[in-house]
Amino acid sequence: MSPTLALASELIRRPSVTPDDQGCQKLIAEHLTASGFQIEFMPCGEVTNLWARRGDAAPLLCFAGHTDVVPTGPLAQWISDPFVPTIRDGLLFGRGAADMKGSIAAMITAAETFVAAQPDHRGSLAFLITSDEEGPSIDGTVKVVERLMQRGERIDYALVGEPSSREQLGDTIKNGRRGSLTGTLKIHGKQGHVAYPHLALNPFHASASALAALCAEVWDHGNEHFPPTSLQIANLHMGTGADNVIPGHLEAQFNLRFSTEQTPERIQARVAEILDAGGFRYDLRWRLSGHPFLTPAGELVDAARAAIHAVTGVETQLSTSGGTSDGRFIAPTGAQVVELGPLNATIHQIDECVGVAELDQLAEIYQGVMQRLLTQS
Amino acid sequence: MSPTLALASELIRRPSVTPDDQGCQKLIAEHLTASGFQIEFMPCGEVTNLWARRGDAAPLLCFAGHTDVVPTGPLAQWISDPFVPTIRDGLLFGRGAADMKGSIAAMITAAETFVAAQPDHRGSLAFLITSDEEGPSIDGTVKVVERLMQRGERIDYALVGEPSSREQLGDTIKNGRRGSLTGTLKIHGKQGHVAYPHLALNPFHASASALAALCAEVWDHGNEHFPPTSLQIANLHMGTGADNVIPGHLEAQFNLRFSTEQTPERIQARVAEILDAGGFRYDLRWRLSGHPFLTPAGELVDAARAAIHAVTGVETQLSTSGGTSDGRFIAPTGAQVVELGPLNATIHQIDECVGVAELDQLAEIYQGVMQRLLTQS
Repeated sequence: MSPTLALASELIRRPSVTPDDQGCQKLIAEHLTASGFQIEFMPCGEVTNLWARRGDAAPLLCFAGHTDVVPTGPLAQWISDPFVPTIRDGLLFGRGAADMKGSIAAMITAAETFVAAQPDHRGSLAFLITSDEEGPSIDGTVKVVERLMQRGERIDYALVGEPSSREQLGDTIKNGRRGSLTGTLKIHGKQGHVAYPHLALNPFHASASALAALCAEVWDHGNEHFPPTSLQIANLHMGTGADNVIPGHLEAQFNLRFSTEQTPERIQARVAEILDAGGFRYDLRWRLSGHPFLTPAGELVDAARAAIHAVTGVETQLSTSGGTSDGRFIAPTGAQVVELGPLNATIHQIDECVGVAELDQLAEIYQGVMQRLLTQS
Repeated sequence: MSPTLALASELIRRPSVTPDDQGCQKLIAEHLTASGFQIEFMPCGEVTNLWARRGDAAPLLCFAGHTDVVPTGPLAQWISDPFVPTIRDGLLFGRGAADMKGSIAAMITAAETFVAAQPDHRGSLAFLITSDEEGPSIDGTVKVVERLMQRGERIDYALVGEPSSREQLGDTIKNGRRGSLTGTLKIHGKQGHVAYPHLALNPFHASASALAALCAEVWDHGNEHFPPTSLQIANLHMGTGADNVIPGHLEAQFNLRFSTEQTPERIQARVAEILDAGGFRYDLRWRLSGHPFLTPAGELVDAARAAIHAVTGVETQLSTSGGTSDGRFIAPTGAQVVELGPLNATIHQIDECVGVAELDQLAEIYQGVMQRLLTQS
């Protein structure tokens, strides 16, 4: 069993559903201490955060990731226990295998191999690990980054281990993400009996056309780096269950993933315009989860591409699609940010898994990035 | 205290929330037995039903009503205990005062007075009382009517004591009701992550235009007797609470109150046409709660109008608006059906009440109907 597979299995064995770290970071810290890293735990609320750094000089290459996993879903549907690492057909099964305990194991063993071979590497190597990526993401990476900023500790390159690959390891890396903006909408009608509609105001009848217009809106066509901005109504609730009552209000929640063609302000203004045209009363609250960010071609993208090609022969595609990640908290500091990790086909699903050979290749790729960025030229 | 006020108070004191009769019908039966009625209890499941008849001949004039009441709502909001009959400012307060223990008390004392004065009245006088009008209405009036039909016992005139009056006692009587048809709709999409909308299908986005068209549809313009057919979406639910998940399905429930200009079949065909135009997958189940019915001018309407005018001086309006009532179960037997009762301004509300003087006038009106229809001419 390779060191990466062994460590990934040890991590999977810990049922670290957000925000409970279950000792994963203690295990990681033991490995990193042995390789000469300085360890700082930065707990916040129920969240466990680890900052580990080796070296004081610039440039600082930081590997970022999370030890928390999403819930298992119905246990009976798993072929094997999600918290008992199990190998079948060359695949390692378990919750977090691909998202992202496999990546973390690969980062750690890559670092161990790299610093053993290059004890006097240039710059610094660091790890930023949280147990709050799959949850509210309030007490995790964002808090560590704040602390680093306060003390003037600047990340030059951040490699986030999120599962970015689609069909082959390394076929896709994410060099940016769309922004995420959520609207919580309450539409006010007037409650009444369905038999007397003229004495009531049905909030859905009042707003149906405007809501349909909101769904049909073309926000932009994206650009070279970003897919088009998209709005999705995620929740819609009206009514008490009775079939003879016209409800007094309707509640909806919608989310936009937006490209750099948009700003939150322009989106909010357009949504207000569409809703106001309906002529009904409403309240609307906004929550901005992240601005879009982009790491254009540069040393980190180049190093990642070259390392992937050297290990797998694969030509990498850059992508900014998909969900948010903790990269959104690191990018605003000015760091180059890339997400590079295993295949994402099974993440958040029943029977999540990662390839056993894929894990070792991933460790090699990560080590290749370290060599390219931290070896004296 | 008048006999009607006393009996109404005795009935209010019994907390007979559907389907629990709490002895109301036993008290009614004692009164009616003393006046020469034959009593039959026809319990069904948890529901108490009473059929009381005096005389064997035609025509049969039946007073119909219910002893059950709707729940009180928050007790703290009532000025006085809803199950302690309380008189303030000439009004009798209590749950059921207007809907419809006041009417039942008035019917009973009217019958007592009438049969005392006319022991040999022509035809027959009857009472059909249930404790399942405010609830599912499955084991109540409909079951008693079935029994009567089976044994060939035919109601000629049914006076339902539902609170029909708007501003003055007797200003409105209902001589029919719209039909009620409920559709339960499930729209199928495909669940996914909001960040990957092209891999999912948002069931609301797919159906928003069709649902808006359903709300905007003009079904008919009503007719001389009926207001226009109206559709109201009463319940609409989609989403699990998460703001990053495109839900897999949407559920909606809508109700139509329909005039005699429509048939359930035509409504169902038109709804299917509107939904099919949307091009999404859906399941739709229908429940028909009642066909529309109408009692055109005739002996019963004439007797009610004349009795109201004699007691109050009010000119009565005929109406078919408003919710369903148990009249829908009696009308299909061929009976003339009229609803005549007290003011409905406070029914189903906190501090439900009926006028003390109104109760005595209502008893006089009911007695006037008995005299007009059952006195030898």
